[in-house]
Amino acid sequence: MELQVRLCQFFFFLTILQYSSSARILRIDKPDWHDVAASARWLVSQNIWGVLSTLSIEHQGAPFGNVVSFSDGLPGEGKGIPYFYLTTLDPTTRNALKDSRASFTISESPIGTCKMDPMDPTCSKLTLTGKLLQLEERSEEEKVAKKALFTKHPEMMDWPKGHDFRVFKLEIINIFLINWYGGAKSITVDEYLRYKPLKVSSF
Amino acid sequence: MELQVRLCQFFFFLTILQYSSSARILRIDKPDWHDVAASARWLVSQNIWGVLSTLSIEHQGAPFGNVVSFSDGLPGEGKGIPYFYLTTLDPTTRNALKDSRASFTISESPIGTCKMDPMDPTCSKLTLTGKLLQLEERSEEEKVAKKALFTKHPEMMDWPKGHDFRVFKLEIINIFLINWYGGAKSITVDEYLRYKPLKVSSF
Repeated sequence: MELQVRLCQFFFFLTILQYSSSARILRIDKPDWHDVAASARWLVSQNIWGVLSTLSIEHQGAPFGNVVSFSDGLPGEGKGIPYFYLTTLDPTTRNALKDSRASFTISESPIGTCKMDPMDPTCSKLTLTGKLLQLEERSEEEKVAKKALFTKHPEMMDWPKGHDFRVFKLEIINIFLINWYGGAKSITVDEYLRYKPLKVSSF
Repeated sequence: MELQVRLCQFFFFLTILQYSSSARILRIDKPDWHDVAASARWLVSQNIWGVLSTLSIEHQGAPFGNVVSFSDGLPGEGKGIPYFYLTTLDPTTRNALKDSRASFTISESPIGTCKMDPMDPTCSKLTLTGKLLQLEERSEEEKVAKKALFTKHPEMMDWPKGHDFRVFKLEIINIFLINWYGGAKSITVDEYLRYKPLKVSSF
């Protein structure tokens, strides 16, 4: 019986450990799909990476999607504008410096809240179309953006200084959101940007 | 003590349940990064969604990335060519039917094997650039592609018939792979497509 008690303790602590490891993540609950601005801002605040598409110099203007990390602000304080830390060694950066037209695409799938296939309309997806612009070095906005990026992606601080990393933002012109059945939802850039800060809950 | 035994059984079964739920996934081990063809094919075979970028009709030729599900074959039998099940209700499909230039981008991140930030070079990423082409209806290739898609994405079979879903493939022209430090790896389309089928192991 002594062994059983020890086993019991072991499995109890193993269970606690498994649940506590996910409890450290600061999360905001998924908004109701009717609230399209909240849905779009939630996707941006909760994701840490997406695909940034530019027009390829190398491939004569073909679209070129690239996996990038991003941040729209400190956790719980995002403003909806995605910031990026990009090197000119990367074709995406060179493309943007020639032609700033770009789109940034994220999915609900990495957040872990999708109950259906990643392409099912209930698994939200967002494409922000606009201009990928380099921020002025040492400007106030660059300072804010760097803090937002380095807080969500601490590894960035150690990326090689010689790689010519620069801070960019996507100036949003159009928002394409699917977060339920019935096609893309209607949402203006103004509605998206004016959305009031999300309530943070930790679980 | 009776209660302790019951508790012990409870936590034991809870632990077993948690591990067995992930054991059902059929997985192929991550290849060594030196083997670039294996790395690229592994990313394609193990992912179930990515971002498909086309040239937007609506936004005057701006790049438009869209989250899509895909399949390159039955599990363990992928051929490296991504197939898609797209509706003409979606702008991506309409863009491709006007100008087939496209790229398809996937990350190692959703597979769950990245140890670093999604943008760190050790967290592999792949961009296939080429032409997004509709397959001939009722052709042999369409039959193969549908089987590949419906096996990985069974929900697709129930998607509304009236939504004009069609099967597309990406005819690959260029491969951009980062799977380690040192910039994009050199890999031809021929090396990628000729890569021998991957050995399947279940764990």
